Amino acid sequence: MAALPLNIRALVFDVFGTVVDWRGSIIREGELLSATQASAAGLKVDWPAFADAWRAGYQPAMDTTRGEGAAWVDIDTLHRRILDGLLPRFGLQGLSADELEHLNRVWHRLMPWPDTVSGLNRLRARYPISTLSNGNVSLLVDMARNAGLPWDCVLSGELVQKYKPDPAVYLMAARLLGVAPQQLMLVAAHPSDLAGAQRAGLRTAYVMRPLEYGAGVPGEPVGKLVFDFTATDFLDLAAQLGA
Amino acid sequence: MAALPLNIRALVFDVFGTVVDWRGSIIREGELLSATQASAAGLKVDWPAFADAWRAGYQPAMDTTRGEGAAWVDIDTLHRRILDGLLPRFGLQGLSADELEHLNRVWHRLMPWPDTVSGLNRLRARYPISTLSNGNVSLLVDMARNAGLPWDCVLSGELVQKYKPDPAVYLMAARLLGVAPQQLMLVAAHPSDLAGAQRAGLRTAYVMRPLEYGAGVPGEPVGKLVFDFTATDFLDLAAQLGA
Repeated sequence: MAALPLNIRALVFDVFGTVVDWRGSIIREGELLSATQASAAGLKVDWPAFADAWRAGYQPAMDTTRGEGAAWVDIDTLHRRILDGLLPRFGLQGLSADELEHLNRVWHRLMPWPDTVSGLNRLRARYPISTLSNGNVSLLVDMARNAGLPWDCVLSGELVQKYKPDPAVYLMAARLLGVAPQQLMLVAAHPSDLAGAQRAGLRTAYVMRPLEYGAGVPGEPVGKLVFDFTATDFLDLAAQLGA
Repeated sequence: MAALPLNIRALVFDVFGTVVDWRGSIIREGELLSATQASAAGLKVDWPAFADAWRAGYQPAMDTTRGEGAAWVDIDTLHRRILDGLLPRFGLQGLSADELEHLNRVWHRLMPWPDTVSGLNRLRARYPISTLSNGNVSLLVDMARNAGLPWDCVLSGELVQKYKPDPAVYLMAARLLGVAPQQLMLVAAHPSDLAGAQRAGLRTAYVMRPLEYGAGVPGEPVGKLVFDFTATDFLDLAAQLGA
């Protein structure tokens, strides 16, 4: 636990993996699809492998939008490109256009971790809380309405048409929330995101999400990074922050 | 009441005057200042005239930020410029720097109309609701936390560094909320704002706020404008929308 005179004035949160359980949510929706949709009923889909493959396409897809001359593309579009590429491998070609669009929007319906909503409500009593996600704004709004996430503000790389860990994304959040970078703390389960926040001058809180990639599958290594706070979940972070 | 097949998918709200009572809030904070602060206790300030003068500076101040070569400046800064110009006229030169800064931030603490919070909660059960204000994001976040405004998203002209009625502001809202302009409805008490929304292709709901400029003082005339909905307050609008 860090000493408290850090003068933190607002918290921003990574979303996919940190706030919501993308893998478990996709597996559950896939199983639901298998159980209820005639077009998918005959299929034997390995939904955990499907979820992992979909997420594995995410970084490479974002990378195509970076750098000189590359056009920024939103996550909904990137998710759909990856999904379309996975259909044959997972035997999903039989889904209708509507079913595919619904499946692509599972990212708008991801479910929170068990501590997320109660933890956010505690943290929010003390600090303004906002998303700071690579997900597009409408995805984040839908997710918050669906899952009861009590954000004070919805911020996304979309607002500057960049993806984290581009420093422009973290600095945009400080600017729009009216605080200095060192008064803003990123809460995230991913060391690379936290390192990006540190490079932009933000404070950092690392929250472990040991089930993000499945039980027993290690997440991104922390390496030599040092964070202002390290917490087992949002309730632990709230306790450490006196919230 | 309009027929309902308009396919409205989200609502955005003008804030100053439509959601919150800027005039009544400024008068009340001024009276509180007179009643409690030694530095202001001896002053006989005409707080209603002060509120009106402050607000009257708003359009001219925004106008200085429009057009070729003009730099966009946020509302907090514009409010402070206007305030500084009003100090001698209202005998407020005796306020300390901290008191002046606190007074300038009264716009972050404006109080809702009596129907606002309950009306927004009803509307929100059916539609995503967002601000679409010329106020900066941090002002809107502070106001929402202070007044219990249940926004799903906080959108501001700041995101495109333009002020309404510039069409870029309305179109930004549709884009970020993931809906077509004709699926988005602006709720506002000001015909000129609603006219701007119509020019950008949005739907419009006019909500009357007869006390905005003080009892008996007429607001902006509607003229020949026709809106999709006209409501006496947010609860009436919710009823008309079946929310």
